[in-house]
Amino acid sequence: MKAEIITIGDEILNGQIVDTNSAWMAQQLAPLHITVAQITSIADTETAITQALQQAETRAEIIIVTGGLGPTKDDVTKTTAARYFKTTLVRDPAVLKHVEQLFARRGYSDMPEVNKQQADVLASATVLFNDVGTAPGMAVERNGKYFAFLPGVPFEMKYLMENRVLPALSQKQSDVFVYNAHLITIGLGESHLARAIADIEEAMPPFLKLAYLPKLGMVRLRFTAVGKDPSVLQTEAERFAELVAERIKPHVVAHADITFEEVIINAFSEANLRLSTAESCTGGAIAAQITAIAGASRMFQGATVAYSNQAKMDVLHVHAQTLEKYGAVSEETVKEMAEGAKQVFHSEYAIATSGIAGPTGGTADKPVGMVCIAVAGKHETTTKTYYFKNDRTINIQRASMAALTLLWNLFQKEQLISEK
Amino acid sequence: MKAEIITIGDEILNGQIVDTNSAWMAQQLAPLHITVAQITSIADTETAITQALQQAETRAEIIIVTGGLGPTKDDVTKTTAARYFKTTLVRDPAVLKHVEQLFARRGYSDMPEVNKQQADVLASATVLFNDVGTAPGMAVERNGKYFAFLPGVPFEMKYLMENRVLPALSQKQSDVFVYNAHLITIGLGESHLARAIADIEEAMPPFLKLAYLPKLGMVRLRFTAVGKDPSVLQTEAERFAELVAERIKPHVVAHADITFEEVIINAFSEANLRLSTAESCTGGAIAAQITAIAGASRMFQGATVAYSNQAKMDVLHVHAQTLEKYGAVSEETVKEMAEGAKQVFHSEYAIATSGIAGPTGGTADKPVGMVCIAVAGKHETTTKTYYFKNDRTINIQRASMAALTLLWNLFQKEQLISEK
Repeated sequence: MKAEIITIGDEILNGQIVDTNSAWMAQQLAPLHITVAQITSIADTETAITQALQQAETRAEIIIVTGGLGPTKDDVTKTTAARYFKTTLVRDPAVLKHVEQLFARRGYSDMPEVNKQQADVLASATVLFNDVGTAPGMAVERNGKYFAFLPGVPFEMKYLMENRVLPALSQKQSDVFVYNAHLITIGLGESHLARAIADIEEAMPPFLKLAYLPKLGMVRLRFTAVGKDPSVLQTEAERFAELVAERIKPHVVAHADITFEEVIINAFSEANLRLSTAESCTGGAIAAQITAIAGASRMFQGATVAYSNQAKMDVLHVHAQTLEKYGAVSEETVKEMAEGAKQVFHSEYAIATSGIAGPTGGTADKPVGMVCIAVAGKHETTTKTYYFKNDRTINIQRASMAALTLLWNLFQKEQLISEK
Repeated sequence: MKAEIITIGDEILNGQIVDTNSAWMAQQLAPLHITVAQITSIADTETAITQALQQAETRAEIIIVTGGLGPTKDDVTKTTAARYFKTTLVRDPAVLKHVEQLFARRGYSDMPEVNKQQADVLASATVLFNDVGTAPGMAVERNGKYFAFLPGVPFEMKYLMENRVLPALSQKQSDVFVYNAHLITIGLGESHLARAIADIEEAMPPFLKLAYLPKLGMVRLRFTAVGKDPSVLQTEAERFAELVAERIKPHVVAHADITFEEVIINAFSEANLRLSTAESCTGGAIAAQITAIAGASRMFQGATVAYSNQAKMDVLHVHAQTLEKYGAVSEETVKEMAEGAKQVFHSEYAIATSGIAGPTGGTADKPVGMVCIAVAGKHETTTKTYYFKNDRTINIQRASMAALTLLWNLFQKEQLISEK
């Protein structure tokens, strides 16, 4: 079944808030085999709301509207919806009592008329009782289409979705199913990847679709199968994912929908190995990316951001002669930084970065965007020099991704050796 | 002028990514007096793209389309756009050369045909040259409407908006001028702020509008004046910004559109003071935020991410007894961490954090979301304990912001003392 989401309110349109509701709703709908075909964010006006409802109704069976149910006068959603469904607004006694109780609990004795209006609902709607807020949700069914109106406040919306909308929709289960298989790949550009697996993609049945989802230095592949027989969908999606994984084996880091950082955390935790970082130009970004993931403490020991030469010597035991002879941005220095971090943090692996992140600070020899990276492993230390461009933010992101890739490659190599 | 944003691709519709691009674009368009009337997220199909373009064109003067420009065959945007504008695709030699150079730099000699296709642009379009990626943007003007097609990768989109689209759009402003004044405030919630300055806002002339742009722990105030006399706009916007700044003085950290990190970097650099961090629960996020800004090296000395107790003792010289008696998450421990960092990195100021970021790891005494922060300054060390909630990502962000606020307050206090 197809759904559309309509969000009402200026906050999303003027960039004051990011619409995280829609992604969450899409994720909840997927297991019910309901795919979101369009998300539309509109202003709080009768024209915009009416047009959005009309157009969504022509394309989808399920229309979920969020926002525009607050008590202030700029919310026209309910009156517009009443006109749209050719019905009236009636005051719901149970909702009114609930709103009054919430007010009393907050210590207010008299409730303004605008708040009483929160208990007004479409006469033709099923009330989606909102235990966690004052604005009730509403569900309207018309000509086989299901409309839900929900508050825009994320936790109220989530409460009503989980307790009212999803249970109602799960009873509508159509006979169309969706199955997704995922591969996470690194070190191969989108187009090279596409060329390497063109024949496999060509051979896929029509109900199976492959999407390339690139992100700095990696590409996520999603195999989506849509059809009536769930077991066939799963078998075929996984079979083709497996074929692709075989073809580009060294580039596949996971056969699941997870991040590269999670892949690394899981692999290191399972192998009982620990990691630390010594960062100059990445300034702690690698450590921050890894520790953003719950469970990182199972394998992450710590990091040193050594911006100054003094810190490189004091904390990471880089030799003064190395800095003098080769400079801070050199493979020689990052090698000593990585080996120093390994020692200081008692870890089996360590990453080190040093470079000229920009936008200034470059020289003819060492231009902006030049980054040296080292990874010290159990048996050896690898180093590599990269030449990125002028944008500081992007250079830091690219250097972080390059460092994690280098780490992964050395880890894989050393695991193979230890297995032998 | 009215704009609409159309985002193309399944990732937003199936909830795999949150659409942060649109909010960013809306914020950039606002100062040009361009309001976003609708944001539409659609699938990568000819029907959806054509319909979205048609409908947007009836409502807005500016239509910005992002996504769907990758090299793989699941991207139908360009061919659909060619049909929509009744034009053809032509291979742009400058773009082709650029794409080939990017390939060569990555060490590939032969470029697949799909990548050559990235250089195909609408014959009727102005190419928006993409220095930071392979997919060029395109601008089409038809019947007084401006269409921009941009890649969906955030940093490429941002680059093209800042360097191609916004300059073009700002030239479309005929005799209407826009002036923006900004205040950056910390430590005061949006509604408290609004109440504190209600009378000033009330007194503003109709051509001046105040926007509250809240972000975790801070609120940016934007005074936008729109009219025909630039000098009047500037005078009035700045006068009211000054009135507000006077009213809420201790909360104002800057009278410009810069980030809090930039405020701190500038103030420390000017005062010739240096900063370091010792991070446990923030995992390097504070260091990464500071070093993301060019010029951070003028004042930032370094950081230690000390996840383990061993690292806290070895690198930051925290006493074993302190860890034993009070635990890693305690004001006593962060105090020693901050003072240790100050010493190790030879800085006048140091920040330390330790807490339970979550989602697990909490106890009855020390629940998930508990974070202890210390700031060591020239003369004293302040410590504070915070109780955030269950979300790891938000806890790290809140802890980082709280730490910078604590740093700023101590810095202000010690500067006042040294001025006396």
